[in-house]
Amino acid sequence: MNPSILREILKVTDRPGVLSLAGGLPSPHTFPVEAMREATAKVLADAPREALQYAASEGFGPLRDWVAAHLRGMGLKVEAHQVLITTGSQQGLDLVGKVLVDSGAPVAVETPTYLGALQAFSPFEPLFTSVASDLDGPLPDAIRALPHDAPGTRFLYVLPNFQNPTGRLMPEARRQAVIAAAQAARVPLVEDNPYGDLWFDAPPPPPLAARWPEGVVYMGSFSKVLAPGLRLGYVVAPPELFPKLLQAKQAADLHTPGFNQRVVYEVIKDGFLDRHVPTIRALYKTQRDAMVQALAQHMPAGTEWRVPQGGMFFWLRLPEGCPALALLPQAVAAGVAYVPGEPFYAHAPDSRTVRLSFVTLTPAQIDEAVALLGHVLRRHLNEDLQAPTP
Amino acid sequence: MNPSILREILKVTDRPGVLSLAGGLPSPHTFPVEAMREATAKVLADAPREALQYAASEGFGPLRDWVAAHLRGMGLKVEAHQVLITTGSQQGLDLVGKVLVDSGAPVAVETPTYLGALQAFSPFEPLFTSVASDLDGPLPDAIRALPHDAPGTRFLYVLPNFQNPTGRLMPEARRQAVIAAAQAARVPLVEDNPYGDLWFDAPPPPPLAARWPEGVVYMGSFSKVLAPGLRLGYVVAPPELFPKLLQAKQAADLHTPGFNQRVVYEVIKDGFLDRHVPTIRALYKTQRDAMVQALAQHMPAGTEWRVPQGGMFFWLRLPEGCPALALLPQAVAAGVAYVPGEPFYAHAPDSRTVRLSFVTLTPAQIDEAVALLGHVLRRHLNEDLQAPTP
Repeated sequence: MNPSILREILKVTDRPGVLSLAGGLPSPHTFPVEAMREATAKVLADAPREALQYAASEGFGPLRDWVAAHLRGMGLKVEAHQVLITTGSQQGLDLVGKVLVDSGAPVAVETPTYLGALQAFSPFEPLFTSVASDLDGPLPDAIRALPHDAPGTRFLYVLPNFQNPTGRLMPEARRQAVIAAAQAARVPLVEDNPYGDLWFDAPPPPPLAARWPEGVVYMGSFSKVLAPGLRLGYVVAPPELFPKLLQAKQAADLHTPGFNQRVVYEVIKDGFLDRHVPTIRALYKTQRDAMVQALAQHMPAGTEWRVPQGGMFFWLRLPEGCPALALLPQAVAAGVAYVPGEPFYAHAPDSRTVRLSFVTLTPAQIDEAVALLGHVLRRHLNEDLQAPTP
Repeated sequence: MNPSILREILKVTDRPGVLSLAGGLPSPHTFPVEAMREATAKVLADAPREALQYAASEGFGPLRDWVAAHLRGMGLKVEAHQVLITTGSQQGLDLVGKVLVDSGAPVAVETPTYLGALQAFSPFEPLFTSVASDLDGPLPDAIRALPHDAPGTRFLYVLPNFQNPTGRLMPEARRQAVIAAAQAARVPLVEDNPYGDLWFDAPPPPPLAARWPEGVVYMGSFSKVLAPGLRLGYVVAPPELFPKLLQAKQAADLHTPGFNQRVVYEVIKDGFLDRHVPTIRALYKTQRDAMVQALAQHMPAGTEWRVPQGGMFFWLRLPEGCPALALLPQAVAAGVAYVPGEPFYAHAPDSRTVRLSFVTLTPAQIDEAVALLGHVLRRHLNEDLQAPTP
């Protein structure tokens, strides 16, 4: 696996004139610019020296308190001293890798899984195990088999809410079964939840961490509900693990910018997200619906997908004979870009899978982009049919 | 070595009523609050969506250009595409460790060396070699001996300008000798330069990287010339190494906050540092001079130090019978804190060494703090004399 595949792909898709369904960029229309303006002015007026000075590696106290209270509202048993503020939740993955992974240690992931996690863990040279998964998430039997298949597995990395790349949501029954299986197999979980707030009809079931506090490391992010350019996330760890993560955090970048932490705390402290996040949900739901329609109208027969109930992504399986990576240059030439699914697999990639984001383009652009993609696929399928048999 | 020693020490020294010579905190009076205020307002007015969106892992283009031009002014041959913006220069150390260090690989450091570098490299489990050093820096003969003493040494980490912890400046002749020795030994250098701008009488000689561009990774920071709470630094790498560092950067935190990069660029783009840095130099020089006087007046006979020509630190060697770590609780009880030198040694610590910062306290406080320290030491020496011989 070459972890820079996606990076190289995204470079190509950045060309002007290309409608990109590739990037996972939140819509910039959702960024709370006015609130940020007020908050930065307030922080620089009230506590400029503190905001610009070195700060504690754990993070800004009031923000840690806020995160703990927010998570308790979701059913987690969390105290502020278990909350580590990170430079985006990507850094949470890096720190978990640093603390829990050694060269040759088995690490289990979903099939497929978030590419950024594979990239974050890879420098520590784990042996990845791809846990068999279906539309609801990893299969409990495959988790139960880990002690046999990959003895000493350090953890299973799971993204239960509107997963990147598949958009799938782990239902309540599967959550219970996954927890039971992980406990039976004595495999800790690393639960990543960047998209949980982006539900369209009903909030997701409570996190896995709410069911097994001592066995789950939980990660969250402000990137999707405020703005990713602030790079602000957090890790919640059982008390025994916390000091090691903190030490790794200190070694990694001393602390996350205090200025950013104070500004975000200033923005959110009085319930701003309760008013703001519903507007993001409404916007993304409209765009999701536009993609539902566009896919139904433009995709060739044999294309498979399930409608995501939240998050940012559709996951497609193209018809037989349509290799997603190989067709990307034709798609880009036609004016549309997507992310082939291959890099999201630790093993045995399904070459016909595709990730489409619906959060960056407008409904009209989504229709146009999907129409272009459908055209590229149909043309390819026709040429395939017309090609002389060798 | 327990990398959290300093962390625990600093917690104790944070007590109210304790005059701290321990922390390496830049004086908050030097933070350009007004310029920050204008710059944040301008960024949020001119490019709010871009500043708050995901951004390139390499860093903000205009800031990379600025850094490259700034370094060319110091004699380095650098193009912007070799500049990687990092979340503080501490992250530069982490990325260098990730890319260049494997478990058991030899890494050479000065004696003593920056504790944060030991902490950053340690997760990758190197075998540290402590290169014999004197008041001018590492000894060229000890570098020449590396292929014999520690075959396969990945790099030598050096901090030539007003080193943390010793405050020492590597003179021109030693720079030439170090480069010749490193080239002969085929040992690349990792050159860290957070303090180079904080000179009092004359700027330091050109960096090592200016003399051997293909053999030196160079690191710089905005923490000491603007404000550390922004967490903004950079790594300059030879073109062959750059893609690997970039990949590690992407895995570590995707990118350094774009908002911070744009704000800092806005602050510095029109020569602000040319006017601002001299005010920091003048302030710190006054405080350095206060410490020169205070040490001469209050330290017991047998204490050794050299007056630093820039930076933030004095490095003391206490009289015989004064173990710095063991005496710290007495010092804190008396109302003064310092950092014992032990954690800055990869091997064979000198237990009588002490690091004193002169940048956080005022001249009057410095005098008071050093007087307290002198009192603690004298009391200890007297008690030692009066103790019955066993």
